Amino acid sequence: MPKSLSFIIFGASGDLTKRKLFSALLDIFSEKHLPEKFEIVGVGRTPYSDSEYRDYLLGQLPKYTKPEAWDNELINSFISHIRYETMDPAKEEEYSPLVEHLKTSNSESVIYYLATPPLLYGVIPQHLKTFGLNGENTRIIVEKPFGYDLSSAKQLNAIYRDAFQEHQVFRMDHFLGKETAQNILAFRFANSIFEPIWNRNYIDYIEITSVENLGIENRGGYYETAGTMRDMVQNHLVQLLALCTMEPPVKFDADSFRNEVVKVYDSLVPLTEDYIRENVIRGQYTAGGDKVAYRQEAHVAPDSRVETFFAMKAEIDNWRWSGVPFFFRVGKQMPTKVTEIVVHFKKVHHLLLDNVNGANPHANKLVLRIQPNEGIVLRFDMKLPGTGFQTKQVEMDFVYDRLSDVKTGDPYARLIEDCLLNDPTLFTRGDAVESSWKYFDAILDYWKKYPEAPLYGYPAGTWGPLESNALIESVNGNWTNPCKNLIHTDEYCEL
Amino acid sequence: MPKSLSFIIFGASGDLTKRKLFSALLDIFSEKHLPEKFEIVGVGRTPYSDSEYRDYLLGQLPKYTKPEAWDNELINSFISHIRYETMDPAKEEEYSPLVEHLKTSNSESVIYYLATPPLLYGVIPQHLKTFGLNGENTRIIVEKPFGYDLSSAKQLNAIYRDAFQEHQVFRMDHFLGKETAQNILAFRFANSIFEPIWNRNYIDYIEITSVENLGIENRGGYYETAGTMRDMVQNHLVQLLALCTMEPPVKFDADSFRNEVVKVYDSLVPLTEDYIRENVIRGQYTAGGDKVAYRQEAHVAPDSRVETFFAMKAEIDNWRWSGVPFFFRVGKQMPTKVTEIVVHFKKVHHLLLDNVNGANPHANKLVLRIQPNEGIVLRFDMKLPGTGFQTKQVEMDFVYDRLSDVKTGDPYARLIEDCLLNDPTLFTRGDAVESSWKYFDAILDYWKKYPEAPLYGYPAGTWGPLESNALIESVNGNWTNPCKNLIHTDEYCEL
Repeated sequence: MPKSLSFIIFGASGDLTKRKLFSALLDIFSEKHLPEKFEIVGVGRTPYSDSEYRDYLLGQLPKYTKPEAWDNELINSFISHIRYETMDPAKEEEYSPLVEHLKTSNSESVIYYLATPPLLYGVIPQHLKTFGLNGENTRIIVEKPFGYDLSSAKQLNAIYRDAFQEHQVFRMDHFLGKETAQNILAFRFANSIFEPIWNRNYIDYIEITSVENLGIENRGGYYETAGTMRDMVQNHLVQLLALCTMEPPVKFDADSFRNEVVKVYDSLVPLTEDYIRENVIRGQYTAGGDKVAYRQEAHVAPDSRVETFFAMKAEIDNWRWSGVPFFFRVGKQMPTKVTEIVVHFKKVHHLLLDNVNGANPHANKLVLRIQPNEGIVLRFDMKLPGTGFQTKQVEMDFVYDRLSDVKTGDPYARLIEDCLLNDPTLFTRGDAVESSWKYFDAILDYWKKYPEAPLYGYPAGTWGPLESNALIESVNGNWTNPCKNLIHTDEYCEL
Repeated sequence: MPKSLSFIIFGASGDLTKRKLFSALLDIFSEKHLPEKFEIVGVGRTPYSDSEYRDYLLGQLPKYTKPEAWDNELINSFISHIRYETMDPAKEEEYSPLVEHLKTSNSESVIYYLATPPLLYGVIPQHLKTFGLNGENTRIIVEKPFGYDLSSAKQLNAIYRDAFQEHQVFRMDHFLGKETAQNILAFRFANSIFEPIWNRNYIDYIEITSVENLGIENRGGYYETAGTMRDMVQNHLVQLLALCTMEPPVKFDADSFRNEVVKVYDSLVPLTEDYIRENVIRGQYTAGGDKVAYRQEAHVAPDSRVETFFAMKAEIDNWRWSGVPFFFRVGKQMPTKVTEIVVHFKKVHHLLLDNVNGANPHANKLVLRIQPNEGIVLRFDMKLPGTGFQTKQVEMDFVYDRLSDVKTGDPYARLIEDCLLNDPTLFTRGDAVESSWKYFDAILDYWKKYPEAPLYGYPAGTWGPLESNALIESVNGNWTNPCKNLIHTDEYCEL
């Protein structure tokens, strides 16, 4: 922990800052995990004085902070550490007040947080370098998306590598800050009973689903340039895939861990055009219930072919996973909000109990729920009471909320604290970003080359285009569709 | 299912009959699983007329029947099928009324149930043979204990084999009628994820505990001739061991299943005197709380050396289990009533997460609860929220009671119905009885040869002699002591 800290937020009047960053920083502050001497400096084009910016935050913070965390004394003490510098971070000529400020503060550690639109991701580090604000004592946190494709990601990486060293760059993927995402590692490597069956011999297929029951809200402008695959799959979902499938790292440190992540990405079987045609489904929501169609949303082209739903089959060609299909599924305007990994084990190979009364065991299923209701469910077969040996699928579950003595933390707070402690383990390394883009670029190229490739409509509030069912049925599988936000069986239904 | 049935109960005025048999028969009757034409004939020395015996049962049944099963119309219909014959089943000369009765009834199927003191187990089949009451249409159910040692068991088997064929003899072990005991098979063989780790490579040791918080009640006379090992271990517990460790049977039929049981018994490593001295603990309860000492109980010798507590380490020498210790523990006057199997898996072999903040994963543990609260608990490690990777042991559980649509049946009802359906799978075969005695005889011989071998006192209401802790600690293990009757973690405490 440094003795003093300047935490500089670029994009200080933006959405992310008020919604996530300040409540995370308040969390860390209330846990007394910030250095005694620290300042948070908001930087942005909207003109504020220090006190105006504090007033603005005091107005916003209650909306994004848990009421139980609200303590006037704490808030006042926290807010007194906040400063503001009015400047356009795109313009080199406006940096001198910031330079002056940091010189005066003379903090042992300086962290830059880029909460700006992605357009500025390349400009800011170059300016910081120009003014010598890139010393050994600085770190830079950059939000996703890191690039729009392989070539832009490579360009960005080149800029960051020119201004900073890799260990100073913290590419944020807030999914990795979630307890249950991290818990996949604990589940696999702190227990002796799961790892022996965690491979192609016992696992049939794996689903990774992340859907929400919202549309694009007011982010039409951004979404039109991004789409679901860029927004969610090439960063978050592929990261979950890595946690789920990586080999045990040599040690649990940043390099060992991130080496294994890159190995997974490098093992993804490259996508040919034929493969994409058969195994990648894109969809876009149409009107449904009281929801308008995507094409009717603000800032969206009326003939937009941007996807709001994405499903695909991926394959990992290595010793452990060869032949096991992985299914990604992401969508807006789905019936519920859930992110989870469902591991489908192979069916019992010898139906010992089948010959009695026609019992027919189901395949075992393990659900790792990332959000909401972080937890784990194991579905297995038990004997039904009575004569004979008929079996029924039942489940055991564990939900974090049930532990009265622990609370799951905020992912942003966790990751900012990690950065403060100079631990980049849970941040994406430059080579991983490129390796992931290298894989997904083939899809972007395909859609560019065949703009008329199918884009399936699905009514808002449904589980996406029916074509995605055919995709998973090709391996005799089914999507696991939780009907509500809860984790229990009877709320699951198969499509 | 036969078209007509005579169900003959020897020992009809005894404890077992009123406590277990009639409520089980009522269960089967209410499920309409008895043939339309059936009679239950009580046989005993206490003189009753049919109607006196019915009145006696009407007085007793409500005490042993669930109130919700009490339906006057049903009861009256059931009771009308009951007859009584006053006779001493030990005396050949008193059999003619029974012979006459069975001739008149002329039922397609006849089942004899021996609910008498064990003394009569040998006499009755001989008399039945004498009177030709042992035809192809007859079966005989005999309660435990089947013999007092290997030689008496062999004698009994010889008598039964002389009077009946093996497939007509149903040696009852009511533990096998329990859903959760049977469920061990479903758990292992209807799921694909447990069997791969069900062997010496992944399992550290297994506990099989069956304790109760009662003394010997009014059974001092019986207990003085039996003791805990005869009463519980050589039949019930070794049967649970077999379910837990058997190889998958070729098919799920009586022969295939029971072949595998015998194979387990035959694989038990024979006990030498040196081994017994080190690995077998016997105890006897002393006064504790408001409970008197065993030696103060009625019909117990004031210097009795009969054990009311028994613990031992057993070993199975076969390909799957070589080197895995199995711990039996049985006792009277313990803090609670519970029967369960606890599978301790090996600790994680590489503490990947240990190097962060000193986290130290626990060993995984699987609890198969036979009674009460039949169910399953899996204890595993999860990540504690917060920075670093500290883990905490948590649990998933499944309890039968939670299934609203199924109810666990009565073990006696299940087994009697199996006999009715001529399915002896869940009854003990003659060779299994002998193989089990062959193993445990060494302990009986040892105690006979060294009557002064230690017998440890333990106060009523405790977890038995401390020496039993040393026994399991010899493999770095601990007994799992549920503190209450519930299955959840916080109610478990380690001694």
